[in-house]
Amino acid sequence: MSESLSSASEKSGLPPGSLVHVGEVHKHEHKITVIDYNKSTLTRRTIKNIEELPPYQTTDTVTWVIIDGLKDVSIIDAIGQHFDIHALVLEDILNTHQRPKFEEFDDYLYIVIKAISLAADEFNIEYEQVSLLLLDKFVFTFKEKPDALFDPIFSRLNNDKSHLRNLGADYLTYIIMDTIVDEYFSLQDTFDELIESVEDELLNNPSAQTLNTIQKIKRELIFLRRSVSPLRELLAAVQRSESPLLNEKTKRYFRDIYDHVIRVSEAMESYRDLIAGMLDIYLSSVSNKMNETMKILTVFASIFIPLTFIAGVYGMNFAYMPELQWKWGYPALWGVFIGVSVFLLRFFKKKKWI
Amino acid sequence: MSESLSSASEKSGLPPGSLVHVGEVHKHEHKITVIDYNKSTLTRRTIKNIEELPPYQTTDTVTWVIIDGLKDVSIIDAIGQHFDIHALVLEDILNTHQRPKFEEFDDYLYIVIKAISLAADEFNIEYEQVSLLLLDKFVFTFKEKPDALFDPIFSRLNNDKSHLRNLGADYLTYIIMDTIVDEYFSLQDTFDELIESVEDELLNNPSAQTLNTIQKIKRELIFLRRSVSPLRELLAAVQRSESPLLNEKTKRYFRDIYDHVIRVSEAMESYRDLIAGMLDIYLSSVSNKMNETMKILTVFASIFIPLTFIAGVYGMNFAYMPELQWKWGYPALWGVFIGVSVFLLRFFKKKKWI
Amino acid sequence: MSESLSSASEKSGLPPGSLVHVGEVHKHEHKITVIDYNKSTLTRRTIKNIEELPPYQTTDTVTWVIIDGLKDVSIIDAIGQHFDIHALVLEDILNTHQRPKFEEFDDYLYIVIKAISLAADEFNIEYEQVSLLLLDKFVFTFKEKPDALFDPIFSRLNNDKSHLRNLGADYLTYIIMDTIVDEYFSLQDTFDELIESVEDELLNNPSAQTLNTIQKIKRELIFLRRSVSPLRELLAAVQRSESPLLNEKTKRYFRDIYDHVIRVSEAMESYRDLIAGMLDIYLSSVSNKMNETMKILTVFASIFIPLTFIAGVYGMNFAYMPELQWKWGYPALWGVFIGVSVFLLRFFKKKKWI
Amino acid sequence: MSESLSSASEKSGLPPGSLVHVGEVHKHEHKITVIDYNKSTLTRRTIKNIEELPPYQTTDTVTWVIIDGLKDVSIIDAIGQHFDIHALVLEDILNTHQRPKFEEFDDYLYIVIKAISLAADEFNIEYEQVSLLLLDKFVFTFKEKPDALFDPIFSRLNNDKSHLRNLGADYLTYIIMDTIVDEYFSLQDTFDELIESVEDELLNNPSAQTLNTIQKIKRELIFLRRSVSPLRELLAAVQRSESPLLNEKTKRYFRDIYDHVIRVSEAMESYRDLIAGMLDIYLSSVSNKMNETMKILTVFASIFIPLTFIAGVYGMNFAYMPELQWKWGYPALWGVFIGVSVFLLRFFKKKKWI
Amino acid sequence: MSESLSSASEKSGLPPGSLVHVGEVHKHEHKITVIDYNKSTLTRRTIKNIEELPPYQTTDTVTWVIIDGLKDVSIIDAIGQHFDIHALVLEDILNTHQRPKFEEFDDYLYIVIKAISLAADEFNIEYEQVSLLLLDKFVFTFKEKPDALFDPIFSRLNNDKSHLRNLGADYLTYIIMDTIVDEYFSLQDTFDELIESVEDELLNNPSAQTLNTIQKIKRELIFLRRSVSPLRELLAAVQRSESPLLNEKTKRYFRDIYDHVIRVSEAMESYRDLIAGMLDIYLSSVSNKMNETMKILTVFASIFIPLTFIAGVYGMNFAYMPELQWKWGYPALWGVFIGVSVFLLRFFKKKKWI
Repeated sequence: MSESLSSASEKSGLPPGSLVHVGEVHKHEHKITVIDYNKSTLTRRTIKNIEELPPYQTTDTVTWVIIDGLKDVSIIDAIGQHFDIHALVLEDILNTHQRPKFEEFDDYLYIVIKAISLAADEFNIEYEQVSLLLLDKFVFTFKEKPDALFDPIFSRLNNDKSHLRNLGADYLTYIIMDTIVDEYFSLQDTFDELIESVEDELLNNPSAQTLNTIQKIKRELIFLRRSVSPLRELLAAVQRSESPLLNEKTKRYFRDIYDHVIRVSEAMESYRDLIAGMLDIYLSSVSNKMNETMKILTVFASIFIPLTFIAGVYGMNFAYMPELQWKWGYPALWGVFIGVSVFLLRFFKKKKWI
Repeated sequence: MSESLSSASEKSGLPPGSLVHVGEVHKHEHKITVIDYNKSTLTRRTIKNIEELPPYQTTDTVTWVIIDGLKDVSIIDAIGQHFDIHALVLEDILNTHQRPKFEEFDDYLYIVIKAISLAADEFNIEYEQVSLLLLDKFVFTFKEKPDALFDPIFSRLNNDKSHLRNLGADYLTYIIMDTIVDEYFSLQDTFDELIESVEDELLNNPSAQTLNTIQKIKRELIFLRRSVSPLRELLAAVQRSESPLLNEKTKRYFRDIYDHVIRVSEAMESYRDLIAGMLDIYLSSVSNKMNETMKILTVFASIFIPLTFIAGVYGMNFAYMPELQWKWGYPALWGVFIGVSVFLLRFFKKKKWI
Repeated sequence: MSESLSSASEKSGLPPGSLVHVGEVHKHEHKITVIDYNKSTLTRRTIKNIEELPPYQTTDTVTWVIIDGLKDVSIIDAIGQHFDIHALVLEDILNTHQRPKFEEFDDYLYIVIKAISLAADEFNIEYEQVSLLLLDKFVFTFKEKPDALFDPIFSRLNNDKSHLRNLGADYLTYIIMDTIVDEYFSLQDTFDELIESVEDELLNNPSAQTLNTIQKIKRELIFLRRSVSPLRELLAAVQRSESPLLNEKTKRYFRDIYDHVIRVSEAMESYRDLIAGMLDIYLSSVSNKMNETMKILTVFASIFIPLTFIAGVYGMNFAYMPELQWKWGYPALWGVFIGVSVFLLRFFKKKKWI
Repeated sequence: MSESLSSASEKSGLPPGSLVHVGEVHKHEHKITVIDYNKSTLTRRTIKNIEELPPYQTTDTVTWVIIDGLKDVSIIDAIGQHFDIHALVLEDILNTHQRPKFEEFDDYLYIVIKAISLAADEFNIEYEQVSLLLLDKFVFTFKEKPDALFDPIFSRLNNDKSHLRNLGADYLTYIIMDTIVDEYFSLQDTFDELIESVEDELLNNPSAQTLNTIQKIKRELIFLRRSVSPLRELLAAVQRSESPLLNEKTKRYFRDIYDHVIRVSEAMESYRDLIAGMLDIYLSSVSNKMNETMKILTVFASIFIPLTFIAGVYGMNFAYMPELQWKWGYPALWGVFIGVSVFLLRFFKKKKWI
Repeated sequence: MSESLSSASEKSGLPPGSLVHVGEVHKHEHKITVIDYNKSTLTRRTIKNIEELPPYQTTDTVTWVIIDGLKDVSIIDAIGQHFDIHALVLEDILNTHQRPKFEEFDDYLYIVIKAISLAADEFNIEYEQVSLLLLDKFVFTFKEKPDALFDPIFSRLNNDKSHLRNLGADYLTYIIMDTIVDEYFSLQDTFDELIESVEDELLNNPSAQTLNTIQKIKRELIFLRRSVSPLRELLAAVQRSESPLLNEKTKRYFRDIYDHVIRVSEAMESYRDLIAGMLDIYLSSVSNKMNETMKILTVFASIFIPLTFIAGVYGMNFAYMPELQWKWGYPALWGVFIGVSVFLLRFFKKKKWI
C-alpha cells in the first residue's frame, strides 16, 4: 500500500498557501512536456523552463503541458503566477494526499484524481495523484513521477484522423480522465482472479495465510474506495457545471465516465460483500476442523480408556481373584475387548463420526 | 455465475466511441428479425442487411427490429449511421457489461436492461444484456444471442385482438420490459424452494455442503442485486421523462413495472436477511455439535479414569498391602467400581448430558 | 408463513391487464355485501349480481360494497366496466401478492393494504390482502375470504349516533384502514410475550429449540416489515393527496393512522435489535457451556492422570525396587495420592473452576 | 422496563376519538394545579373542577394548568369541550403509549414528550408521558402521576426576578421541555458509570452476569432511543413552525434544546458502539478462557500419558524382560521419567503455555 | 479519555442562560491576551480586566482577544454585556461539553470547535473546547486552559509580511480553525503507527493485550468521531452563510478546511473498517490456537492411549497367558509399540497436523 492514511501533518503549522511538496518524495527530476496540436499540426517537445510557455497562449491550438515530478516547487509557483492560479490550488497540487475533487474558478477548472497501477508480481495497488488544470485552450497535468500512464493518449494524438485532434481542451481533459478510470476496470480483473483463488483455497485447504489474504484484499478495498467514491460526486459536479470551458457536447462524454465509475464502485461493494461472506466461511471452517480433531480424540479415548481399565483390573494383585485362574479367562477377556470396541465403533458410526 | 464482475478492461486504451464488442463472445451468427405491425396487418421476416430497413420508415406501422448476436459490429455501425445514434450509445450496446440505465436523446430513448434465465438442473443464473432503442414508430432490441425470451410477445402480436396491436412503439417497449421483469418473479420461486430446502438441511443435518449452498445463494443475490437495483431508478426516470416518444397513458404501465421491481428488490432484501440468519444458525449448530462431542468424551473419560486409577493401585507390588489378602477384597472393589460409576452417571444425568 | 415470498410468476407471460386471480386460492364462494347508510337510515343486504348496484349510485347515501373472495373474476370485471376502473387496478386487486400502495385516479382512489391475523395456538401470522376503491359516495373493499375483520365496523355503523354515520365515504375508508392497522398493535402484544419467554429460556435453559424460535421470530419480522413499511409512504401520500374525494378534515384522521404505523414500525425495529442481541447471548451461552464441559474433563483428567502414573510406577516388576519392601510404603503412597489431589483441587479452586 | 413495547391494543375496536385511558393505570387520584403569574403577581391553587378555569381566560396573566393523573377521563373531556381541542388530541393525551410529537392547530399547539426518571437502587428507567397544550396565555400539562418533576420550575417561578416571570406562555413551554430533556443528561452519567464498571468487569472477571448486564444496557438503549430520536424531528418542527403562539425570540431557546437532544442521541450512538465492542470482547474472553482450560489439560495429559505408558511396560509380566533384572533399572527409569517430563515442559514453555 | 460522555447534568435544574462553568475545572488562573494588529503595527499585551477592551473598538485594527481559562464567570459575563452577546451563547461558552457548531447572529458569529492534543507517551487524546466569537474587527477565543495551541499563529503574526496581517478578522478566524483542524491530521500519523503495530502483533503474537489495544483504538475513534463529524456540517454552514462578517474570498479558504475535514473523517471510517477486520482476525487466531492445542493433545493421547492399553494387557495376572512365556514376546511387543506409533504418526502427518 503506497498510499498512507496519514496526510498533511508534515505541513501542519505552516501558513495556508505555502508551497511545500507534501507526500512521498519521488527521486525523479521533474520533466515538462508540451504537446501542441490542432487538426492539422502536432508538435511535442520537452522544455526546461516555464518561460517557454507564453508563445503558446497566442496560438489557436490546444496546448497540453505535462509536468512529471513535483519536487521543484518553483515550477508550480511560476505557473501559478503566470496563469493566475489561486494559491490554495497550487498548494493542493503539491500535496499528493488530496481527495479527488473538482473546483470551478472563473478562468479555469481544477480536477484532482488518483491514477492507479498494479505491481506486476504482487497484489499491491500504487496510487499516483494527477492534478488537471483546464484553461481556455490549455491543459496542465501534474503527475508525481514520469511513467507510461499517458502513452495511449500520445499514440492517439499522433493519429491525425482521431476525434481528439478535432476537438478542444475539454475533450482532452475527458480523454485523460477516461484513461485513468479505465485502469480501475483492469483492476477488477485482478480482484476477480484473486477472489476466485481465495474461494478455492477456502473450500479446499483454508489456512491462516488465507485469512491474511482476505484481510489484505479487504484493506486494499478500503483504500481503493477512498479514491473511487469521491469520483462519483466529482463527475456529477462536472456535468452540472456551467463553466464556458466545458462544451455541452463534451459533457455527454463525462456522463459516460460517470457510468463507469458507478459500475466500478458497485463492483467494489460486491467484493466487500463477498469478502464478508468469506470470513464467515473461514471461521466456520476453523470450527469444523476443530470439531473433526475433537472427534478423533474422542473416538480413540473412548474406545481405549474402558479397555485399559479392564486390563488394569486383571493386573491387580488380589490374593483371591478367581477369574485369573480360569483356563479360558485370558482368551475370554480378548473377546470382551473386541466386543466393547465393536460396540463403540458402531455407536460412533451411527453418529457419523467415522 | 455467467456475469463476470470484471468489465471493460478488454477495451481499455481504445478511444471512446470505438465500436468493439466487449463481453463474452457468443458463437452465434447474428440474426435480424423485423416485425412490422399495426391494428390490421402483421409481417415478420428475417433480413440479412440493414439496408432493407428504410422502407419501413415511411410507413405508419410500428416496426420492431430484433438483433440477436453482437458479433458483427458493422450492423450496429450501420444502424448508428442510418438512424443517427450517438457513438457512445453504440459503444454501450456492444459492451455487455453495462449497468441497466435509461438515456434520453432528442430523437430516441436508450434503455439497457438485463434479462435473466435459469439453467434448469442447477442453481445458476444467466444474464443477457438487452438494449432497447425507442424511436418514433421504431423499436430496436439488441440481444447477445438468439433465445426464446420474446416468444410470449410474438404470440401476443399474432393475436390481432390484443391491446398491443392497437398501441404504439412505446407500449411495445413496455411489453418487452415487462416480459423481462416477469422473469425476475419466476426466479423468486426458485429462491423460495432453495432457501426452504437449505433451512430443512440446517435443522436436520447441517454439513459443510450446506454452508457452500448458503454462500452460493448469497453470491447470486449479490450479483442479482446489481441487475435489479438500478431498475428502480431507471423506471422512475422513464416516468419523469417528458419525451414526446412516451405517451402519458403508457407511463401508467411503466409505473406497474416499477411496482414489480420494488417488490422484487424487497424480496431480495428479505432473502438477504434470511441468509444472514442461516449463517448464524449454522455456526451455532457447529458449536452445538462440538459441545456434544466434548460431552461424550468427558463422560467416558471422567468415569473410567478414576476407575483405572483404583485398579492401578491394587496392581502395585508393595510387600505390605493388607487389602490384597482380604478374602472379599476383590468383590468389594467391584462394588467400589460400580458405586463410583453410578455416582458419576447420576452427576452427568443431573447436568442433562446423558 | 402464509405469505409466500414468491409472486406473480404464476402469471408471467400473460398480457398485462389480463384478469386472472394470482395468489393462494381460497375455496370460498364469493359473497357481495352492500351496506347503504346515511345519518338516518341503514340497509344491509347480500347481493348476487353486480347489476343490483346501479340504483345506489343515484342516492345521496354512502354505499359500501364488500366483496369476499376473489375467485370469480367476472365480478371484478363487471365492477371495472361499470365504474370505469383501469385494467391494471383490476389486475392488482386480483393479484394478492401486492405491496401496500396508494394510487390516485381522477374519479377514484385505489388503496391496497394487508390485514393480518394470528392463528390462536401457534405463532403464525396470516396475511389477507384488502383492496379499497374510494369513489364519490362509494367504497369497494375486496377481500380474499369471508372473515370477521370488519365486524367492529358493522356494530359501529348500527349505532346511529356514531360519528361514522354522519360522515362521508372518505371517513369510512379511514375507519377501515384504522381497523386493519389496529390489528398490528395487537400483534405487538404477542411479540412482547414471545420475546419475553424466549429471553427467560435463554437465561435459564437455552437449547437448539430456543434458537429455532429466535429464527422463527426473525423470519416473521422480515415478512411483517414488508407489509408495514410501505404503509408509511402510503399514508404520507394520502395526506399529500389533493383529490376532491378526500375531505381536508378526514386527512387529519389519516395522520393519526400514520402515527400508529410509525409506532408499529419503530417497535419492529426494536424487536429486530432485541433478537440480534439474543443470538449473541445464545452463541456465548453455547460457548460457556462448552467451557464448563471442558473444565469438568480437565479437573478429572488432571487429578487422576498423575495418580494413575504413580500407581503404575509401583506396579512395575523391577527386581530391585526398595520402596516396595518398606513397611510403610503403601500407606505413605496413599498420603502422596491425597496430597497431590488436595494440591490440584486447590489449584483449580483458585482458578474458580470448582 | 416500565415502558411496554405493546400499545393501543387495549383499545383496538373502539371508534377513533373515544376517550379511554390507555396505558398503565396509576392508582393516584387526579390533581389539578393552577399557577397564574405575570411579572408582579403569582397565585397557585389546587382546583377540583374544570369550571373554575374560565375566569383566568379573561386576565392578561400566563396560566399554567397541571393535571396529574389521567384516570378521570371527564376532566380531559371538559377541557376539550371548553377550549375546543380536537378529539384525536384528547385521545392522544389519554393514551400514554404515544411517540413524542408536535402538532400545530390554529388556536393551540400540542406536544407529547416522555419524561424519564431512574429508580435509585437499580438501573431501571421509568417513562412518564407529558402532554403539553400551548394556547394563547394558557399552558396545559398532562402527566400520568403526581411527582416532583416540575419542582425546579416552581421554585424558579417563585423568584419574581426570574426571566420566566417576564415572558409568555411559549417560554414556559420551553422551560418545561428543557427541564424534561435535562433529565436525559443526568441519565448519561448513569450510563457512563455503568459502562465503565462493566468494562472493568470484562477485563478482570467476565461472567455470564456481565453478559446479562450488557444485554440489559442494550435493551434500555433500544427503548430510550425510541423516546429520544423523535425529539429531534419534533424540535426541528417547532423551529420551523410559523404559529403566532411561538415568539421568534423563544424559538432561539428551542434551538438550544435541539442542540441538547442531538448531543444526547449522539451519546446514545456512542454507547451503542461501545456495547457492541463489549460483546466482541466478551466472546473472545470466553474463547480465551476455553483455550487456557485446554492448555492445562493438554499439559497434564501430554506429560503423564507417556510416563504412564512406560510404567505400564515395566508392569508387564513377560518371563523374559532383561531390564527388570538390572540392578540400576529402576533408578534409571526414574531418570527417563524426569528426562521426558523436562523435555515436554520445555516444549510447552517454548509454546508459551506455561 | 479526557472527554466524558456525560454532560450538562451538573447544571440540570438551573434556569437556562445561568452562567455556570460546566465541565472539568482546570486549576489555572484565567489569562486575557489582547493582540491588536494591522498591516503595519502589532501590539500584544495581557490585560486583567475586560474594561481595558473598549479603546480597541474605535480603532481600525483587528483585535484578537484570547481568554485562557473559564473559571472566572464574571469575565464572560462582562464581555457578554459589553458586546451584547446572547445569554445562551455565553452559557455555551462556559459549558465545555458542547458539540461543535456554528451560529449566526446579526452582529456576530459564534463557533465552537474541539482542539485535540496527544499525551506524548501514551495513546490518550485530550480535548479542549475552543469557542470563537467573530465580531466586526474583533475575534474572541475562549479556551479551557493556557497552552501552546496558538503559538504557530503568533509567530506568523509577528511576520509583518504574512498574508494574515493584511486581511481581516474573518481570515484570522479561518487561521485559528485551520490550526486546530491540522492537529487532527497529525493524529492520523499516530493512528497509522498504532494500527500498523497492532496488525504486526496480530500476525505474530496476538494476546488479550492486543484485544485491549484494539478496543481502546475503537473507543477513541468513537469519541473522536463526535468531535469531527459535526465539523462537516459546521463548515458547510459557514460557506452558505451570508453574514457580512464573512468576506466572499475568505469563504474559499473555509472550503479548504472543509476538504480537510472530509479527508479526516474518511480516514476515520477507514480506521473503523480496519479495526473491525482486526477483531475478526483476532477471533479466528484464538480459534486457530485452540485448534493447535487440541491437535497436540489429540496426537499425544491417541498414540499413547492404545500403547498403554497393550502394556496393561500384558500386566494382567492370568494364570494362562501363553505370550508371557514366549522368549521373544517382550521384544516382539516393542515391535508392536513402534509399529502402532509409526502408523498413527503417519495418519496424523497425512492430516497435516504434525
